[in-house]
Amino acid sequence: MSDTGYRPGLHILATFKAPSAALRDLAGCRQLFTRLVAELGLQQVGEAWHSFPEAGFTAVLALTESHLSIHTWPEYELATFDVFLSSFRRDNSEAVRTIYAETLRHLEATEISKTELSR
Amino acid sequence: MSDTGYRPGLHILATFKAPSAALRDLAGCRQLFTRLVAELGLQQVGEAWHSFPEAGFTAVLALTESHLSIHTWPEYELATFDVFLSSFRRDNSEAVRTIYAETLRHLEATEISKTELSR
Repeated sequence: MSDTGYRPGLHILATFKAPSAALRDLAGCRQLFTRLVAELGLQQVGEAWHSFPEAGFTAVLALTESHLSIHTWPEYELATFDVFLSSFRRDNSEAVRTIYAETLRHLEATEISKTELSR
Repeated sequence: MSDTGYRPGLHILATFKAPSAALRDLAGCRQLFTRLVAELGLQQVGEAWHSFPEAGFTAVLALTESHLSIHTWPEYELATFDVFLSSFRRDNSEAVRTIYAETLRHLEATEISKTELSR
């Protein structure tokens, strides 16, 4: 749709295997996301963080560029992760890949599955 | 991974074409999502809603079952929509399809693209 100026963005969806401790550490993940949003010049407009009693956590961040989410199941050493940034004002594909790689590294995770969608 | 009891959930990702008026109507969409969460017995643990000046809106809902998101671009008559519910405690696939269909109907939208992922 180049006639309208609309540019789709990159969405990466993945399932990780990671150590339980990392998947219970809401505070560490929050610190990571806060740092990444700042460093990459993204604009956060809301967020929700929720810990499950003696289990994992769920988080979604609303960005003007779209969203970021993570849901963890430490009892299965699993997490599902999404990062989607529209490229409305600039090409954010590299930022998507950076957030993905840094989250994987932070959680000491291995990728079980990964899907990339241009949307 | 049936040995652990973990059940992946259904994630639908779509791009809609819809009338601009519906894509500016944050309040109407919020009412819809609130109703669907209640009717389907889902548990909301956080949300973020943001309106862009004279433009669209962005929303993410954190659910114990995962998340729901919408980003609208009324200037292009476009929206991107995601619904992902894990099937941890019960099979939520039908709830995912209901939310998808009701959102499409509410926005008087037509589907431009749709991806279904079991994750």
